[in-house]
Amino acid sequence: MPPSSPRRIALDAMGGDRGPKVNVEAAVLAARESGTAVTLVGDETVLAEQLAGHQAAGLPVTIRHAPEAVGMGESPVAALRRKKRSSVRIGLELVRHGEADGFVSAGNTGAVMATALMVLGALPGVERPAIAVVMPTVTGRVVMLDVGANVDCRARHLLQFAVMGHVYARDILGVSAPRLGLLSIGEEESKGNELTREAFKELEDRGGLNFLGNIEGRDVFSGGADVVVCDGFTGNVALKISEGLADALFHLLREELQRDLLARTGSVLLLPAFRRFRRRVDYSEAGGAPLLGVDGVCVISHGRSTAKAIKNAIRVAADCAGNQLIAHIREGIAATGGLS
Amino acid sequence: MPPSSPRRIALDAMGGDRGPKVNVEAAVLAARESGTAVTLVGDETVLAEQLAGHQAAGLPVTIRHAPEAVGMGESPVAALRRKKRSSVRIGLELVRHGEADGFVSAGNTGAVMATALMVLGALPGVERPAIAVVMPTVTGRVVMLDVGANVDCRARHLLQFAVMGHVYARDILGVSAPRLGLLSIGEEESKGNELTREAFKELEDRGGLNFLGNIEGRDVFSGGADVVVCDGFTGNVALKISEGLADALFHLLREELQRDLLARTGSVLLLPAFRRFRRRVDYSEAGGAPLLGVDGVCVISHGRSTAKAIKNAIRVAADCAGNQLIAHIREGIAATGGLS
Repeated sequence: MPPSSPRRIALDAMGGDRGPKVNVEAAVLAARESGTAVTLVGDETVLAEQLAGHQAAGLPVTIRHAPEAVGMGESPVAALRRKKRSSVRIGLELVRHGEADGFVSAGNTGAVMATALMVLGALPGVERPAIAVVMPTVTGRVVMLDVGANVDCRARHLLQFAVMGHVYARDILGVSAPRLGLLSIGEEESKGNELTREAFKELEDRGGLNFLGNIEGRDVFSGGADVVVCDGFTGNVALKISEGLADALFHLLREELQRDLLARTGSVLLLPAFRRFRRRVDYSEAGGAPLLGVDGVCVISHGRSTAKAIKNAIRVAADCAGNQLIAHIREGIAATGGLS
Repeated sequence: MPPSSPRRIALDAMGGDRGPKVNVEAAVLAARESGTAVTLVGDETVLAEQLAGHQAAGLPVTIRHAPEAVGMGESPVAALRRKKRSSVRIGLELVRHGEADGFVSAGNTGAVMATALMVLGALPGVERPAIAVVMPTVTGRVVMLDVGANVDCRARHLLQFAVMGHVYARDILGVSAPRLGLLSIGEEESKGNELTREAFKELEDRGGLNFLGNIEGRDVFSGGADVVVCDGFTGNVALKISEGLADALFHLLREELQRDLLARTGSVLLLPAFRRFRRRVDYSEAGGAPLLGVDGVCVISHGRSTAKAIKNAIRVAADCAGNQLIAHIREGIAATGGLS
């Protein structure tokens, strides 16, 4: 579902482990490939210099000066309080004031979340915005949320996550009647911890969701559901352990492949297949995790994102804007009635 | 560390998705390869028939009749109450009465846990026995616990898990001063949920443990710690999502490798390397998860275990018995003082 018209995205050009260089490159790629208008937010001198290194004349890439940057390890609360002119703050204000249709950052996740909540505000009825991540499965893709915004959750928060995940899978991934699973440790209603047992009841009672019941970790990657809800602690552990395992498996595979001449010869023949494989399982291809539940489009990228990953995050933000995601989430939450 | 003398292990021969056939095969393999004496517990007619199909004359494999079996989907509480002569119950009673040095089951995990707690009892000071799993990492192995026995935990339970995991890594895996990590979502003490923040303080205060602090999911498989503690809900989700991801990655890799002639040719050359790789990352090689904290050796295998996996679980049980694991855990817990 491509956006109906070119979108305007504000990019935190100072964010991420690799700084302005990859952000500027990502903006140029996005503008060139899809015509998306990108406003680079950050130190104008640094950004102009970086931009001059690209063939960007005629492309809809502009610069908005922000004199401060939030460090990756900085306390979100301190950043929010002290850095009123950070690239994160100014980028989100562009969205707030209608000068941009969405914001993308590969910067300090906590600071982006806290600033987005303050600048954009939460949608009515949403108590806790959640970070959603789209992961590849054997059969397609799955949206998992929350993966880190809320470490201690109540059952009704999980219900709100479910509604937001449902709308996201439907509007952005194009899945009709997305199958919803509650991440737990056994399929029966009676299985799980206090939180999931209570959330199970609330999800069952709520109309309009295609609730399958509990889903076990094992079935997340086999494609057992289109949307998986969980508290942010469990979701973050699940996400990071998956990233770590994938890395470890690649490492071990590489080791085995280098061990003898036969395998080394075989690997050369296999290179294109391995590249396709890595591309299919590469989280960065999905391009960033939307922060759902705030009143504006905000997409968070991995700190170690490449230019390509950030370009994909810009595309996700443009899709969200083009598909009226915020309005649809607002309607979905309102329809749940008396949630908060 | 091989046991100093042949051990006697009671095997729930009715347990697991594949039933008596693989259990009998596992017993014969264990007896033949390591001289372990195995008592097959279950329906004597069925077991005698299965055993007759093997060249088992002269091997230390015997049969103990148990007229009942616990189904894989059966309620643990109902099984405990109604089936007083199940293979699980009778097998654990052999341990309790000193007729066996350990018990192994690939059966209903909940029923094995509940029955072990009732028949063997908990060690003094242990409020919650925990299931520990040994997983391969890039650099070696890691013990993770709890992976499913206790869904809702308090900080002091995590401290008990830490002590038991420490002893297990030291005595069974042979790691001196095992590095201990608390599974959380950020390395700083302030990160995590209520439970992990409180557990962090308790672990820091406790002497005798080589506590590294929080460990993120990403670092579990890179070998960042020898022991990882978590509540049973988080641990079970982490374990199962890892199993599911590994399966999904193999599936996708196979798909890519079959896609063109070049890759298919390469794969043939790579077969030995792939086999080594699968063996290295195969959980069943580790051979079952010990239930730590009960007063006797009890090892739980995956329901879908093969004969080889169950044979490995028998070896783990024999190692635990040979290394006086229970006595060492008892000492470790006692040394923590005033835990409960």
